[in-house]
Amino acid sequence: MPEPVFAPKLGASDTRPRYPSPDPARVFSDQERQALYDVIAARRDVRDEFLPDAIDPDALLRILEAAHTAPSVGFMQPWNFILIDDPQLKARAHDAFVSANQEAAALFTGDRAALYRRLKLAGIQKAPLNIVVTCDRNRGGAVVLGRTHNRDMDLYSTVCAVQNLWLAARAEGIGVGWVSIFDHDQMRRILGLPDGVEIIAYLCMGYVDQMYSQPELAVKGWCQRLRLDDLIMKNGWQGD
Amino acid sequence: MPEPVFAPKLGASDTRPRYPSPDPARVFSDQERQALYDVIAARRDVRDEFLPDAIDPDALLRILEAAHTAPSVGFMQPWNFILIDDPQLKARAHDAFVSANQEAAALFTGDRAALYRRLKLAGIQKAPLNIVVTCDRNRGGAVVLGRTHNRDMDLYSTVCAVQNLWLAARAEGIGVGWVSIFDHDQMRRILGLPDGVEIIAYLCMGYVDQMYSQPELAVKGWCQRLRLDDLIMKNGWQGD
Repeated sequence: MPEPVFAPKLGASDTRPRYPSPDPARVFSDQERQALYDVIAARRDVRDEFLPDAIDPDALLRILEAAHTAPSVGFMQPWNFILIDDPQLKARAHDAFVSANQEAAALFTGDRAALYRRLKLAGIQKAPLNIVVTCDRNRGGAVVLGRTHNRDMDLYSTVCAVQNLWLAARAEGIGVGWVSIFDHDQMRRILGLPDGVEIIAYLCMGYVDQMYSQPELAVKGWCQRLRLDDLIMKNGWQGD
Repeated sequence: MPEPVFAPKLGASDTRPRYPSPDPARVFSDQERQALYDVIAARRDVRDEFLPDAIDPDALLRILEAAHTAPSVGFMQPWNFILIDDPQLKARAHDAFVSANQEAAALFTGDRAALYRRLKLAGIQKAPLNIVVTCDRNRGGAVVLGRTHNRDMDLYSTVCAVQNLWLAARAEGIGVGWVSIFDHDQMRRILGLPDGVEIIAYLCMGYVDQMYSQPELAVKGWCQRLRLDDLIMKNGWQGD
């Protein structure tokens, strides 16, 4: 069966559907641009500075809208947001972190091991709200536009949502900490996730009135910021 | 050998090192917060609207600084930014996209196949600048804080850098399109990537004065935005 849209056609014989045209692009002012840069610079991974105040529902909705406005491969929108404020559920998640963190600490030696054990790495119970951001790997059906040659693009889309969420929260005065130290199968059982749904980020959230001005791992001597110049290359990989 | 920092100590006998305290957290104004939300809402995946103008070097540096300010697991900063403006290199990348996109198109049937083939999905040669964001999986050494229980946290960190880059570019009037349709081994050879360095995002970038006000795949009828309400759950997975 002929599919005329495949064949390039010109002039009056062109019967391809007409799409809406793009609109004039909004231009952001210097002040707006600076606000974005300031939020990006002020964002921190928060582990301990959470205040106990409940998060304003309107602010939370704005933050989740920002997350939901992230780019996604094939417009797949593979994310879900599981809000956790139940103390018993938090306690189970905290236990999963603690046991994994003991395993993790044992992987470091000497001064690094000592420093590792002094670091607070999660505020699951202190933060009034936890949000688990998941990726439903089956949401778009068997074949997803843009994911045909990289099966993990849906995971990356979900991370984009996490970063939007993180920046929005910062602008709302809410700190976010990303907890990555837990056994994934154990946490999946705690949350009751079905097959095909993956945990991308376990986030601790709460208002903050104190924050580190530099990444906490730099402040505490774990490692330092690299020079941006050393990370930029031109027209191919340079170096060994 | 005793490691006193392991043992909890109280009062005058506490000899643990004193870290700098966090600072008062900057409070963002309503206007600043709105600017962030507006940038997030106005960001698009751009495939065709690129203008030929070269990107201002100062703007590019601000954008890359924003990317470099992303969170990273264990402060690993695993990213590199490969800037591509060489026409021959772009042509090879474009060829890699074209052959993969033909494979991809063949995976759809009927109306979807016809629509797929009408969509422009990459602007590699039209965009004056391409940036490949990579992840060096060995950067932090054998054991990376926070990556002990999820080996892919470094990939996710790099995606956070991509999202920061994308938002910063939007605020600078620069459109970004993320190309994901290519054979990864082929593109690695084109770029000369060493073992252990992965391509996370192939980005096309250029100034834009026209943009879609909604995601292009929605405008063109590929699929529509999901309702946020349907994606939010409380205290565990709900539904089947």
